[in-house]
Order: sequence, then C-alpha cells, then structure tokens
Amino acid sequence: MRMIAVDAMGGDYAPEEIVKGAVDAVISDGIGVILVGSEKQVREELRKYSYPDNLISVVHASESIGMGEHPAKSVRRKKDASLVVAARLVKSGQAAAFVSAGNTGAMMAASLFELGRIPGIERPGIATVLPCPDGLPRVLIDSGANADAKARQLVQFAYLGSAFAKSVLKIEDPRVALLSVGSESSKGNEVVIEAHQLLQDAGDLNFAGNVESRELMTAGVDVVVCDGFVGNITLKAVEGIATALMGMIKEELTKNPLRAFGGILVKPGLKEMAKKMDYSEYGGAPLLGVNGISIICHGTSRARAVKNAVHYAHQAVTSDLLGMMRRGLE
Amino acid sequence: MRMIAVDAMGGDYAPEEIVKGAVDAVISDGIGVILVGSEKQVREELRKYSYPDNLISVVHASESIGMGEHPAKSVRRKKDASLVVAARLVKSGQAAAFVSAGNTGAMMAASLFELGRIPGIERPGIATVLPCPDGLPRVLIDSGANADAKARQLVQFAYLGSAFAKSVLKIEDPRVALLSVGSESSKGNEVVIEAHQLLQDAGDLNFAGNVESRELMTAGVDVVVCDGFVGNITLKAVEGIATALMGMIKEELTKNPLRAFGGILVKPGLKEMAKKMDYSEYGGAPLLGVNGISIICHGTSRARAVKNAVHYAHQAVTSDLLGMMRRGLE
Repeated sequence: MRMIAVDAMGGDYAPEEIVKGAVDAVISDGIGVILVGSEKQVREELRKYSYPDNLISVVHASESIGMGEHPAKSVRRKKDASLVVAARLVKSGQAAAFVSAGNTGAMMAASLFELGRIPGIERPGIATVLPCPDGLPRVLIDSGANADAKARQLVQFAYLGSAFAKSVLKIEDPRVALLSVGSESSKGNEVVIEAHQLLQDAGDLNFAGNVESRELMTAGVDVVVCDGFVGNITLKAVEGIATALMGMIKEELTKNPLRAFGGILVKPGLKEMAKKMDYSEYGGAPLLGVNGISIICHGTSRARAVKNAVHYAHQAVTSDLLGMMRRGLE
Repeated sequence: MRMIAVDAMGGDYAPEEIVKGAVDAVISDGIGVILVGSEKQVREELRKYSYPDNLISVVHASESIGMGEHPAKSVRRKKDASLVVAARLVKSGQAAAFVSAGNTGAMMAASLFELGRIPGIERPGIATVLPCPDGLPRVLIDSGANADAKARQLVQFAYLGSAFAKSVLKIEDPRVALLSVGSESSKGNEVVIEAHQLLQDAGDLNFAGNVESRELMTAGVDVVVCDGFVGNITLKAVEGIATALMGMIKEELTKNPLRAFGGILVKPGLKEMAKKMDYSEYGGAPLLGVNGISIICHGTSRARAVKNAVHYAHQAVTSDLLGMMRRGLE
C-alpha cells in the first residue's frame, strides 16, 4: 500500500477542510493517507468521521509555516514544520507522494531541499491542468515556480509536461506547444525564439509549434510551455476575466423581473458551465522536476479540492509519473 | 482644421469598410479626413455616400502592404504604400494624425521611420484601452510593439501611458501600476523587479505598485505597464476566454426548450454585457512614443471601429497628447 502524505496544517481552511478532504479520499477511493500536523488537532478533527482505521495514520509535526513567511528561510529554520515533515516522509519512502495547500513557495523549497531534482532538470516547474470548454485538458507549465527561465529550461518543461500528460492524463503522444505571440518561429521574445529552435530539434518530443494565448483553451495541443512569469500572469488573467464575466452575467440577469425569470430558467445551464471550468476539479498542481511527487493546492482549497488532490497524487504514483519523467530526460 | 489621414487600403475589409467608417466620422463628428490609397477605388466607394465635400480629400498611393509582408522590408521598399504615404502626411504637417487597420508591424515601422521618436524614448509601445466591467478604462502598455523590454523602457512606457490617460482619457492624476505576479516589490521577473524600483524612485509619476493580471479589469489603477510579450499574451488570453465563455453560454442556453425560452428573456442582458466588453468601442490603439499621432486598428476592423479610431485620433490631437508626452519625458 502506497500512502499519500497530506499537510494537515497548510491552507486557509486547515486543519478542518484538509482532514475532511483526506478522509473523503480514503472513503471514496480506498487511498491510504498519512496526515501530518499537530497530532492533537488532527485527531480532534478525525473524531468527526468514521473511516477504515488501517488507511489513515497521523504523524506529528510541532510547527507550521504561515502563508506570509519567507519560503526558503522558513523551511530551513522550521525543521519540524508540517509540510517539511511531509516532504521528508516521501524522501524516506514512508509516503509515495505529498500534498499541501500551504505556502506555495515553502512547498517548492521543501520539495527541492528534501527530494532534490531529477537528473537533467535545472529548475522544477508547476504544471496546471486547465479545464477547457471542450472538456479536454491542457497542461500549462510553468505556471509560476520560476519567474525567469532560459530557453533550455523551457525545453526541460516540455519534457516534464509531456511525461505528465502521458502518465497521469493518459494522452498517448502529447502535442507540446510553446506559448507565444504568433505562430511563426520568428515570433516571440528572445528566449521563446531560441526555445522554438531547440524544441524543433528535439526529435523525441511531439512539438506542435507556437500557440497564442487566445487559443490556449481551444488549440489542438496537450501541453503549453512558458516561463513562470508569463504562465502565472496568463493563468490569473483567465481566472480574473472568468470571474468578472460571471459577475456581469449575474448582474445583468437580475436587472428587471423578466430577466430574473429568464435567469431562473437558464441557471442550471450556467451552473453546468461553471462546473466545467471549476479549477478545484483538478485539485492541485504537481511540481514537476523534483525527485518525488509533490502536489501544490490553492491556499483556498476546501475538502473537495483536497480530496481531488489526494486522488491526483495517487494517480501520479500508480501511473509512474516519476519514472516517465526520468526516462524522458535521459 | 486639423485633418486625420486614414489608410484606405489597410485591413481585411479595405477599402469598403474603411471608407465607410471615415465618412461616418466626418458626418457625425465633423472631423476632416484625408483618405490615402488607390484614388480610383476610394472615389468609387465615396460615390456611395453624401458628405460635406470640404471635409474629405483623397491622396493617391499606388501601392499597399499586405498582412503577411515583412514589416520593415516592405516599408523600406514600397515608398508609395498607402500607410507609408499616410505617415508622411503627418510628418509634413498636412495631417495631424493617421489611422491604419493594415499590417501592424508595417504600421510601426512606417511610424518610426517617418516620424521618429520622442526624445527620451528608446522604443514606442502600443497602448490598448481595456473595456472593463465597471465601465472605467484601463490602459495596457505595451500590448505588443516590442517582445523584449529593459527595465528603463518599462519606465518610459509608464510616462507614455500616463500622458495618454491624462490627455485623451481625461484622468487627472493617473495611477500607474506594473503588471506582475504578486503585489510585493520582490515579486516578478528580473526586469519587473528592477522596474519596480525605478518607478518607485520616479517622483513625478503616481506609481501604485504591482498589479496582478487577475485584477487587471477591477484594480483601482488607470495604466498597467508590461513588456509587449506579456502584454500581448495577456490581452489575447482575455479575448480568448471571453469568446470561449460567450460560446459556452450560447450552447448551454439552447440545450433544451426551457433554457432556450429563458435564453430569449436574458438575451438583452447578455447583449448589453457584450457591448460593455466590445473592443471596437475604442476603435484602435495608439503607438505611443513616436513623434506624431499614429493609431493602429485591428485588421478585422469594420466601419464602426474605423469611425471610432478616427474620433480617437482627433481626440488625441485636440487634447495635445504629443505635447503631454514630450513634457512628461523631459
């Protein structure tokens, strides 16, 4: 039985929602979970539920890292912080993967310090699965781990994203694209133009050329590569406009009684749409390139997102994501 | 009377829609226009309308530049291309500004070659006015003129955008922000972190710190500064997701008869919403930093967008945008 370590103290709704999500994953999917955090608090939460005893264990951690703390410094100083202990469980082999909704920077630092990098990787990248209107996922890597990237690091992201799409998303021969401002190889900033050339020369990747952000969610590609600055800005722009539009719809649909009545009729449709675009469906984003499975959840994650993240971590383990990444980079 | 030169041959719907838009601007706003292009074709289009004769003149240009042509090369080779001739009219003082929906790169090249740059500006930037849900405009600069930018060039964009917001948008003391991945001054890529410091030290700018793309359309700022690669990707991401969401809404609202009926009731609301977000309202984006008024329209511009662009160019002239930019950079 491969257990998934869960940082019970990380995130805005820890430990309540984190423990609840972990228990849900145990019950619905039979996944084994190690909850890491204040044993007293975690056991208190666990008392609320009934679950198979053998599938949940608790590992005590006396500290936790706050959302505002300096990532590298806090990880170095707090050796017994819940997310550091969780990372160490993966390193020692007691857990096969770990999940945290805590401080993203600290999560990256703990993953790097404890697990190290896969040979051939200079910097790990965060892979975010975009829920798209056509129901097909697109992987955006790097969506925020490193603000600056060199061309060869974008190529490394391409290999990581491709391995992830193959193993976890079960896409046979993932089409990898480069995010740019035009489809021609001459379009882009200096780093992207150089990366385009390198990717074209990389025989073992299914490189589909450049893709524009306009078609990020509709293009016939599976993996979209960019640096973490551009990726993070793109991701948040999409989130922001989606939220703004849904807000505008709500406002317009309550402006007068006739529209409000129409609004009631179309509400199920809008709900289905919101569900299709719901990021918590995917539960978390893996930090690819570290030598172990590390899943980063949004700080605002509630039980549902945590449950999905545990499920996701489990999938990454059973589909041998790590082996696939290592082989891809040989 | 300050005339606005309009490239009659540029854009997907030239010359029909371009001439129509120019005539509309003449009739509704009393703006004087010089149409530049094949005299025969332009006169043929003009015969469709009646308008005050003294407000429209035609300047013949024997060539035009296609959408796929190499910007700098085509501008250098085709001395009598419509958009080059239009730029030259501004240089010679016969026109006060010029507008084109043609090849964007060629438009930039012609503006640079013919008009030169404002002292203190190394690279001009495209300023796009984002139509936002709250009805307040936000200026995004650079939205695509230069893929790479140095920190000091981002500062130049800040001055240009601020002058534009003051003069054309009549915002008294424009709040200028830097697009980044977090609000702290330490967040961003190397160039952005350096630019943040420079902007903080620039006493004559109302610098509001960093803004994230998530709040691009809601933040309490007037001008958002970024390099052209990030700006173009952000802009197209917003466009793409808005289009995708509107498509999904349509689909969901026709899934069954009940929803379709509800859809009819809410349709006016959705239309009002689409109008609020309609980019053609603003008609064009000025290339700021060149020594003259140059307005770039989308290649797909129809009459309405062209009319608004001419109106916009006229506003830029009467509000002394050029003088404001020059003084801002002194």
